[in-house]
Amino acid sequence: MTQQRIYNFNAGPAALPLQVLQEIQTSFLNFDNSGMSITEISHRSSYFDDVINDAVARAKRLLNLDDRFHVLFIQGGASLQFAMVPMNFLSSDDTADYIDTGTWSTKAITEAKIQNKNYTVVASSEENNFSYIPKNIQFSENAKYVHLTSNNTIKGTQFHEFPDTKGIPIVCDMSSDIFSRSLDMEKFGLIYAGAQKNLGPSGTCMVIIRQDMLDMANENLPSMLKYSTYSSKNSMYNTPPCFGIYTIDLVLKWIEEEMGGLEKIEEYNRQKAALLYDFMGSTSFYNATAQEDSRSLMNVTFRLPTEAQEKLFVAKAMENGFGGLKGHRSVGGCRASIYNAATMESIDNLIKFMETFAEENK
Amino acid sequence: MTQQRIYNFNAGPAALPLQVLQEIQTSFLNFDNSGMSITEISHRSSYFDDVINDAVARAKRLLNLDDRFHVLFIQGGASLQFAMVPMNFLSSDDTADYIDTGTWSTKAITEAKIQNKNYTVVASSEENNFSYIPKNIQFSENAKYVHLTSNNTIKGTQFHEFPDTKGIPIVCDMSSDIFSRSLDMEKFGLIYAGAQKNLGPSGTCMVIIRQDMLDMANENLPSMLKYSTYSSKNSMYNTPPCFGIYTIDLVLKWIEEEMGGLEKIEEYNRQKAALLYDFMGSTSFYNATAQEDSRSLMNVTFRLPTEAQEKLFVAKAMENGFGGLKGHRSVGGCRASIYNAATMESIDNLIKFMETFAEENK
Repeated sequence: MTQQRIYNFNAGPAALPLQVLQEIQTSFLNFDNSGMSITEISHRSSYFDDVINDAVARAKRLLNLDDRFHVLFIQGGASLQFAMVPMNFLSSDDTADYIDTGTWSTKAITEAKIQNKNYTVVASSEENNFSYIPKNIQFSENAKYVHLTSNNTIKGTQFHEFPDTKGIPIVCDMSSDIFSRSLDMEKFGLIYAGAQKNLGPSGTCMVIIRQDMLDMANENLPSMLKYSTYSSKNSMYNTPPCFGIYTIDLVLKWIEEEMGGLEKIEEYNRQKAALLYDFMGSTSFYNATAQEDSRSLMNVTFRLPTEAQEKLFVAKAMENGFGGLKGHRSVGGCRASIYNAATMESIDNLIKFMETFAEENK
Repeated sequence: MTQQRIYNFNAGPAALPLQVLQEIQTSFLNFDNSGMSITEISHRSSYFDDVINDAVARAKRLLNLDDRFHVLFIQGGASLQFAMVPMNFLSSDDTADYIDTGTWSTKAITEAKIQNKNYTVVASSEENNFSYIPKNIQFSENAKYVHLTSNNTIKGTQFHEFPDTKGIPIVCDMSSDIFSRSLDMEKFGLIYAGAQKNLGPSGTCMVIIRQDMLDMANENLPSMLKYSTYSSKNSMYNTPPCFGIYTIDLVLKWIEEEMGGLEKIEEYNRQKAALLYDFMGSTSFYNATAQEDSRSLMNVTFRLPTEAQEKLFVAKAMENGFGGLKGHRSVGGCRASIYNAATMESIDNLIKFMETFAEENK
């Protein structure tokens, strides 16, 4: 059936590495000679201990995390993190800084507001339709954290350098570019990432939290809403999303053992994005929407001359085996999401299709 | 590989119907001719709309739910529901009644307490090690809801009749016996069930909520923690746990189309449990721990004469292809969890093994 698979440019849930999917399929009725499916094994078994411990160890190796960092798996996606972050770190006297690069950042701000927390939006690119990443930001001296979204899937923008916050820990929604590049972790107090773009299936959120953030978190919260519940129980206070964690483990193994780690995959991702942006730059038919210095390596957003041409482009692409190229319903246009699992072959073939389409429809 | 599968008596995550697992496996690289895995399709696609709508429709048909009831999918398991229920329904002047049948009920009470909510524990079987289900309970006139756990996986007890609460809606944790029997839904204002026993993989919790409960829920809460977020967006305010919902849909299809619905599966479950309890009753070697009128049809808890024999029993069972028979670490002993997917064949063979073991080790 593999030959009937499409080139999948979905924004999320998104393409996963074929060999990861094949491994899941092959062992689906009998995981690790347990005589059970991965969906049927106890989370209290040594089978699952091996899975979750391997996933944590691989994440720590890939990101060069020292013992101050805890890797957790929490349900509810980035959307629950929008609420958990202010809930855990802001008591009534505290305040936090937020950078608004649109959509997800805006939602994160809304969840702080719902809880009547103090915060300052220290930078926003709203006045230019969120088409760029703000620079030269002044942060509040007393901020407990600075929240930002590293990559905006809808606007097609990405932080290529993280701001100097003068020691204030960055809390970062990295849902759409985690493990796509190497990182200097010293700046980050907490990173969270819904799995469904670069990591695995939807329903599992990876949270990486530094010990000093844990130490200052509010303990007087419902058990499932405080980070210490997860850090003290290796993410197994209750039954974790086992299938999601298992898939994440296989994806991290693929990054480590097949792709050669984060520096290699970053290079690969840069090449893929450059091919696509350079091709579009060479035409007057396809126009990238994000400003050049803020363009995402993960989500390439672009417009065609008319909406009618865009509609035809998406339809014809699907007919030719290229899926997921429609822009988000909130902004329109087109988008190619090219996360870790998108292959160079898929980009090459997409560009060939785009050339032909432009030729036939300009 | 199917021939290497064991008889799986895990308490949860637990056995799933073999034909459901086989369908997942077969279509894992190409779901519904989409050219993508179920883990790669967009939750905003018609492919996934069909899945979630089918799951909701099947749940409503199986339980004879009218339009007052909403079927939702929420992450975080029953443990998050322990907190969401008082958060949504108890403002500072309100109070609720809780029935404590151990473990999960106790945790639900703890989460109301953490939030400083008013509540009354109107009945408890703690004085007898939670070995029975309390009867003849007096409820508070002003309770907003009565919370109970329909089946206790660890103590092996189950409500066979639900109490007459004089119109106060029952909020029920049905994680371990949902869809195992037919139900009179008139008594229930809200039912929640972590999927990993009778429904699917861990990581998805089904919530069935009646409109009048929704109408009285607190709206001033983080988006991911209020029921209206899920009911107003068909459980897709953010990316839902797609693989879990897909598997639940297949399990509900299996119940409806292969097993013949809830009355049939209830009959089957009664037969399976009766076989096991009757066999143990005929021996002096195996002793069921729950009181006779409170025995669970889902989790058969029992003791052998000595702890050494129990340890040997669990080990020898595993050697012979019977997994998951160790009792919960908090109570010891043995346990056979025989949810919907446990076959009569597995019970027959387990009893044969138990006979032989008793003969050789008495």
